[in-house]
This record gives sequence, structure tokens and C-alpha cells, in this order.
Amino acid sequence: MKKIEKHDQDVIRLHNKQMILEIIKKRRPISRAEITKITKLSPTSVGRIVGELCEQGLVRETALTSVGVGRKAIMLDIDPQAVFTFGVDIGKKVIKFGVMEFSGKLLHEERVEHTALKATPEATAALISETINVIIANKKLDKSRIIGIGIGVPGVIDHDRGIVQYSSTLGWRNIPFAQFIQDKLHILTVIDNDLKVKILAEYLLGSAQGSRKTALIELGTGVGSSLIIDGDIFRGGSNSAGELGHTTLDPNGNMCECGKRGCLQTYIDESAILHEANRIKETADMQQLFAAAQNEENWAQDIISRTSLYIGITINNIVCMYNPDAVILCGDLVENYSEIVPLIEEQCGQVVWEPFRDTFKILTSELKSKSIVVGAAMLVMNNYVDKS
Amino acid sequence: MKKIEKHDQDVIRLHNKQMILEIIKKRRPISRAEITKITKLSPTSVGRIVGELCEQGLVRETALTSVGVGRKAIMLDIDPQAVFTFGVDIGKKVIKFGVMEFSGKLLHEERVEHTALKATPEATAALISETINVIIANKKLDKSRIIGIGIGVPGVIDHDRGIVQYSSTLGWRNIPFAQFIQDKLHILTVIDNDLKVKILAEYLLGSAQGSRKTALIELGTGVGSSLIIDGDIFRGGSNSAGELGHTTLDPNGNMCECGKRGCLQTYIDESAILHEANRIKETADMQQLFAAAQNEENWAQDIISRTSLYIGITINNIVCMYNPDAVILCGDLVENYSEIVPLIEEQCGQVVWEPFRDTFKILTSELKSKSIVVGAAMLVMNNYVDKS
Repeated sequence: MKKIEKHDQDVIRLHNKQMILEIIKKRRPISRAEITKITKLSPTSVGRIVGELCEQGLVRETALTSVGVGRKAIMLDIDPQAVFTFGVDIGKKVIKFGVMEFSGKLLHEERVEHTALKATPEATAALISETINVIIANKKLDKSRIIGIGIGVPGVIDHDRGIVQYSSTLGWRNIPFAQFIQDKLHILTVIDNDLKVKILAEYLLGSAQGSRKTALIELGTGVGSSLIIDGDIFRGGSNSAGELGHTTLDPNGNMCECGKRGCLQTYIDESAILHEANRIKETADMQQLFAAAQNEENWAQDIISRTSLYIGITINNIVCMYNPDAVILCGDLVENYSEIVPLIEEQCGQVVWEPFRDTFKILTSELKSKSIVVGAAMLVMNNYVDKS
Repeated sequence: MKKIEKHDQDVIRLHNKQMILEIIKKRRPISRAEITKITKLSPTSVGRIVGELCEQGLVRETALTSVGVGRKAIMLDIDPQAVFTFGVDIGKKVIKFGVMEFSGKLLHEERVEHTALKATPEATAALISETINVIIANKKLDKSRIIGIGIGVPGVIDHDRGIVQYSSTLGWRNIPFAQFIQDKLHILTVIDNDLKVKILAEYLLGSAQGSRKTALIELGTGVGSSLIIDGDIFRGGSNSAGELGHTTLDPNGNMCECGKRGCLQTYIDESAILHEANRIKETADMQQLFAAAQNEENWAQDIISRTSLYIGITINNIVCMYNPDAVILCGDLVENYSEIVPLIEEQCGQVVWEPFRDTFKILTSELKSKSIVVGAAMLVMNNYVDKS
């Protein structure tokens, strides 16, 4: 009982604070009286919350402005550079970095090569920490204004406790990675699944703005999905919702590395597609496959057409289960070979259950290769306001 | 902008009201001062909200009680019979009715035979309205205390607008069914998908109490699913999340009535199972199939084992996508032939992706045949407090 009440109060308090901050961001500059009028909260509550926001440095008082006959009010504004966050994207071959200011703008970006499966968690943490230290020094960032580092990691991530539970891309199991970084830099660090931060970025600043229930499907070296509902990342019971790659596409199908039969990833991830291609003709990479299809080689066109069919079926399954109003297709496959998108859309006309056909739109990523960096940085920004 | 702010305020106001009502229900009787202490809301706010609740008749003042040295406080309590709701479950052959009191208890139950596909929406509405009128008269219910009727309907339901968009069980399309009832009885009527109200019932009063993210799988004449997260029914963009029956199990599989190939329902719904059985031996119904299996007839055991495998795969797909902490198996198949449950659990040990194997428990329904009536009645109860 106690716990529920405490939780309820916190939710309300936080909700009011977020609401006021959003109002200030959107209507800057604005007076306390106007906020009171808009929110219908008591002047005391508004005063207290604004006080907190000012104390945190998120909001500042500006010059007096006339708001009525003869009266002058102190106006409130945000300082776009009040705080900074870092967004980090740990990929298979590259680690990307971004510095984001309070307003949501990326001030600086950087990338460092690495080899995921050869890097120990300790070495990766050292590389990330050093790079961040160099950026802070080069860009002369005020360290006291850096409120945190967000990191998008491929795999099953315990977001609350900052642990990489399992990442096949990195070959890590049960690594308290957030703590590794925090111990080195003494900056709050949060980690989350890469596709969950990616969809947050698209929702807040990318192609899913205005969508209320958005599903994201990642198609490339891996296969995965995520969902965001009214701005809340859908996490499931242990932050593992959306593990699309190991849903079963065909009970009698291909063996998967996981030991099960017919997992979706054995049909549509890059290695599965190339495996299929190499049965017919030596194919080094996806570029060669798509070039062969362009060249009107039948076998290549068939493989791409079959891949589109399976992706269409995947979209049907996602739409039946999540009933989103938009589906974002992301990942190397659709970003590097966008000619596949109309083929997928065509398949959807056949394989999506009829009552759902007009209930969603298919989008592609707007932020593309930046999306994980942006989402990871925003994760901290949101989190910071939440926790303060 | 305006809309967002209005929404935010409403959410907070409603949240506070629900919180206070829950506190009174759980700690009855309780004083305003104690509520103020627990909620940390201002005495003015608490007074106003309690006033609203009293005015609605949801809460009443009781005798003075000593709470400290020489002081006496007016205590607040709920009247278990302050309000009533009706829950209605429109099934294939039977319409079930229940009268629920404010405390959540079912006062009275009743069932009426009908034949779904032969009943027009108008005739069904007339039958439901007449039955409710008879119950009101016989049970001498105070009509002014009946706050609403909740109806669980199989199909795609526009819950907000009270429209049955599509129901294959009933053969209805775009029927404003809530309005039909409301016009006859002049009592607020809400309708919702049957599995969505079912999971609400199990969450509030059945086997999923204490689970935070629960998935429900219906197995019987139809196949479907629903999800509830921290008490909120997961609806998707157009209240159609969970349409499991038309997810694709096998891209090269059985033709489905919907025109697609390999839909899950063509493998595990009752007619699909019986169709398979009749290939081998004339089988009138499920009872005969399970009797043959009991009798150690191989063909029957094989069919049941294959069904369990497909249900196991379905559980894997649900768990991968939703990551729930509990999965409730419902419907005639598991309720009438519970010997299949251990077979399904055994299959899950094989076909659920390894990282998820220990993340959820498999439950069966506690409320069984009452669950839709209970959930539909609770839907109105929740809704009423929401709207007041």
C-alpha cells in the first residue's frame, strides 16, 4: 500500500514538473502567472516547481516585461545550453558519439572504429571514456553542465540497473556497463537497447513525430523491433519486448543458431539472405546481390522478392499484435537499398490482414545513422528531468 | 497546445481522485486528515475531491471516531451498494448477464440462449435490454444507482465510439451497438472486445492479480489475445492490438478464410483441429478427440501433441513481442481439456527462445466462464470513476 501511494505522488509531482517545463520550452518567454493560468495549478505549486527548475539551471528568469496596464512580470525562459548530454551508439564496427544541448540540437559528432566481438567490455568502456574526455577538452565543455551519458547497446539490456544482460553482437553477458563508464568519468550513465533509443529519437525528432503508436522494424545484420506509445517506450516485463528475430516464422523451417527452428532472422537478416544467394552464385555482399537484381538476373530478383514477402508477413504480424498507426522500416537493408521499400509495400497489400490494411502507414527513418546517438542523448535528457 | 495542457490537467485530477477512492476502499473507514497525510495533497484538494466522491454517492461520511486525545473525526467509508453496473457477455450461443455492486461483487447472474449468426443487431439489442429490465424489476434494483452497462463483444470494437466494427462471430459490420442499448434503456452503455474485458477481469479479480504485464491467449472456437500493462488494457492505434488469429504461422501453410495463407487460426482453432482429426477418423467434437487420445489412439495423441507444439510457438511469439511476466491460457480448449496444459508447458521448454524461458509464468483463468461478465462490469465501474 505504502509503495503505491508513494509512487502515485511521485508520478503527479513529476508530471506537473514536466508539463511546466514543456510549456516554458514551447512558449518561451512566459511568466509564472501565465503558467498558473494555463495549468490551473496553485500559484504556490507553480512557484515551487519553477523554483526547482531554476535551481537545476533548466529555466532562468529574464528581463521584466509588461504584461498588462502598468504591471511588469519576470519572464521565464530556458537556456538552450543549460545542460548537455552525450549520446553513444555502440555498433558492430563503429562507436558513434554526439553532444546534445538542452534544446535537442546535436552540437558535435564523432566516430571511432572498433571491432565488436574482439573488444572486451573493459576495453570498450576505456575507449568510450577516453573519447568523451577528449571531446570535453576539445570543445571546452563545462563538465558541471554535462548531466549524463546515454548509450544504445545491441542486445537484451537491463535499463534500470544499467546491465548488458546479453549481447550477441558484442559477445557480452551480464556486464554492468553503465557502472564501468560512470566509474571512469563520474558522470551519470544510462544504457538501453539500441532499437528502443532509436524509436525514441524518431518519435521525438524524426519521421514518427505526430504518430501516437509507432512500431519500428530493424532490417540488416540483425532483425529486431521496438514500439513507442504516446512517448513511452514499450518495454515489457524485463525490457525485452520486441525480440522479433526469434519469433517463429515457420515451425518446420531453417535451424537457427539459438537451437530453435524457423526463427524469423534465419529468413531475413543479412547473413540469411546472402546464404540463400550463395546457393546459386557466389555473392560477397548485399551490394552484389542488389546489383545482380538491377542487372535483371532472375535468381537475385527472386531472392529479393522472397525477402520482401517475408518482411511483409513480419509487418502483418507486428500490425496484428501491436496495432500501431505507423511502422518505421530501419536498418542497412532498407537504408542502403531503398528500392526494396516499394516491393515490401506491394507485398503488404497481399499479406496484411484486410481489416488492418488502412490502419497504418509505412515510414522510413529520418535520422538514419544518427538515430541511436540522438535517442541515447534524449534518453538522458528525459531521464534527468524525471529524476530531478 | 491547448489540448495537451487540458489533457494533462485532467489526468492529474483524475489520478488524484482515483488514488483517494482506492485509499478509502482499502483503509475504510478513514478520515480526511489521514488521507491528507497519506497523499500529501493539500487539505483543500482532499476536501474538494472527497466532496465530489460524496456527491456522486461513491463515498459516505460515517460516525465520529476518536483519532487522538480528545479529538473526534468524521470518517469516510464506501457504500458497497452505492452504485451498480451490468456486465454482459455476448457469446456464440449464450448471452450472459451479471449485476455487480460497487465493491466488485457479483450480486446476480443470468444467461439467455441465442444463436449468434442468426441474430440481427436490433434483435440482440432488444433481447439484452428486455433481460436487463426483467433483472432490474425482479431484483428491485434502484435504477438511479445503475451507472452503466458494459458489454464484451467478440470482434474488432471501436471502444471509444461504441461501434462493433467487425465481428465474424456475429456477422456484424459497423454497428453502433452501444447506442442501440442506450436508446432502449437510457443507461450509459460501453462495449469492448471480449478478450480485452476478460484480461481486465483476471487482472483486477482473477489469476493475474499481482502480475504487472499480463498476456492472455484465447484458445477455442476462435484464437485471440490481449495484453494489460499496470492495469491499462493495451489497445494499439485502433483498439485492435492482439489479433493473434491472423498472424502468419507458416508462409506456405493452410489457406485461411481471410484469403491469406498460413494464419495461426488455421492450425489451432477448434474447427482446424477437428478438420485435421476428420482426415483420419470421423470426429464429431473435441470431446471425442480427447477421448480417443485418452484411449491411447495414436492419431489423436499426435494431433493434440501437434496442437500443443503450435500453441507453444504462439506463446514464444507472444513472449518475444510483449515480454509479459505472465501468460494466461483461456478458452474452451484449455478449460474443458485441461490435460493439454502440461503438454503445452512441455513444448514451451523447447520452443520458447532461451533468454525468455524463465521470465514468465503460465497461468489458467480463475474466473473462467464468468470472466467476460466481470470484466465488462468492471469496465463501466472504472470508466465511471474516470468520467465523474
